[in-house]
Amino acid sequence: MHRTKVKVVQDALDANNTIARANRDDFDCHAVTVLNLMSAPGAGKTSLLELALAGRGDVRIGVLEGDVQGSYDSDRLAALHVPVVQLNTDAGFGGECHLDANMVRSAMPALPLDDIDLLVIENVGNLVCPAEFRVGEDVRAMVCSITEGEDKPLKYPLMFRACELVLINKLDLLPYLDFDLDKLLYNLDAVNPSARRILLSARTGEGVDEWRQWLCELAARRARAAVV
Amino acid sequence: MHRTKVKVVQDALDANNTIARANRDDFDCHAVTVLNLMSAPGAGKTSLLELALAGRGDVRIGVLEGDVQGSYDSDRLAALHVPVVQLNTDAGFGGECHLDANMVRSAMPALPLDDIDLLVIENVGNLVCPAEFRVGEDVRAMVCSITEGEDKPLKYPLMFRACELVLINKLDLLPYLDFDLDKLLYNLDAVNPSARRILLSARTGEGVDEWRQWLCELAARRARAAVV
Repeated sequence: MHRTKVKVVQDALDANNTIARANRDDFDCHAVTVLNLMSAPGAGKTSLLELALAGRGDVRIGVLEGDVQGSYDSDRLAALHVPVVQLNTDAGFGGECHLDANMVRSAMPALPLDDIDLLVIENVGNLVCPAEFRVGEDVRAMVCSITEGEDKPLKYPLMFRACELVLINKLDLLPYLDFDLDKLLYNLDAVNPSARRILLSARTGEGVDEWRQWLCELAARRARAAVV
Repeated sequence: MHRTKVKVVQDALDANNTIARANRDDFDCHAVTVLNLMSAPGAGKTSLLELALAGRGDVRIGVLEGDVQGSYDSDRLAALHVPVVQLNTDAGFGGECHLDANMVRSAMPALPLDDIDLLVIENVGNLVCPAEFRVGEDVRAMVCSITEGEDKPLKYPLMFRACELVLINKLDLLPYLDFDLDKLLYNLDAVNPSARRILLSARTGEGVDEWRQWLCELAARRARAAVV
């Protein structure tokens, strides 16, 4: 019984990976680099994207916005005159808690792949399943708000392990929390010592330049490779 | 294809509901009231439970602690000398993002049902799937931290709709956030106008008495009915 369940789950993940590779091939054809951006609900993905996009200069970035329902974040980002495509996961029952490769594939015809160098996929706010489903991305990053506590890397290790960049947000609240930043970094080291980390605050702007620079360099990664 | 998927999902939810009813029957037999406590990661479920349990007097409360992995929260609660049973969801692949009725059923033999009047099930930190899976509970409640933003009831309506109590936590941070409390309450009214709400802060203790009283009254609910 248990073995059967694991087999079904494995088949589902294999099917997802097959579609993710097809997505990746399509992104490659258009020389688009893809970032899968994840976090718990309310950690600040959209706010940090707004700040990075506002100062993007001539870097061509598009956004695929994943939500259970609604288009609140899409509306915020579209105001910055970037191409934004909304993907809602509530077609099933209560709503899927993550994006999978097939959902991203269904959005492909709406994505302006010839006009962008970087696609940011803003995943559904959730620290578990989004890390389990590849969608065809090159890079995975996450936002971790210090209001969530120091223990999150230990409680959700797959997510923290999956990401090459961890944005540690809401740093302006440090004086008002019983929170030990060294302990969070220690816990992050325990599950993913090689992850790059940027300490920042969407509210004060601290650290946002570094995040914006990281994002713009990511956009140039494939374009540079194509020139070489 | 789409229809098949919906059918499979429906079957899975039907099977879950059947097991949830069996759990409920067992809880009924022992006159135990059951609370399913949910929230996003880091909203403060465990801290608020600690505070309520510390002042519980002679109210007999047990905890079933759901986590993807680890026993960090169980260890905190066990220090308060309440019976705590740990349930980890990582037996499958990366870890299930919610508790379901079968997982709770598997923990049943370890629960001291004759020695408690209230069982608090602390679900996995997630605003999507925990609301979709009944586990045999009488009541569902959630913690919503004001650091998560005012839009959460609109983005995760199923969760906010499922709960008869919404604990609005981290109120001590209000002066330091760009956060409109009236807007959160307005959005909550839009999806669940009848939900009771308690404004509180685990850090300052504000509102904790009201939450503790609500919990202790819940514990007495079935005991009282048995006497009548």
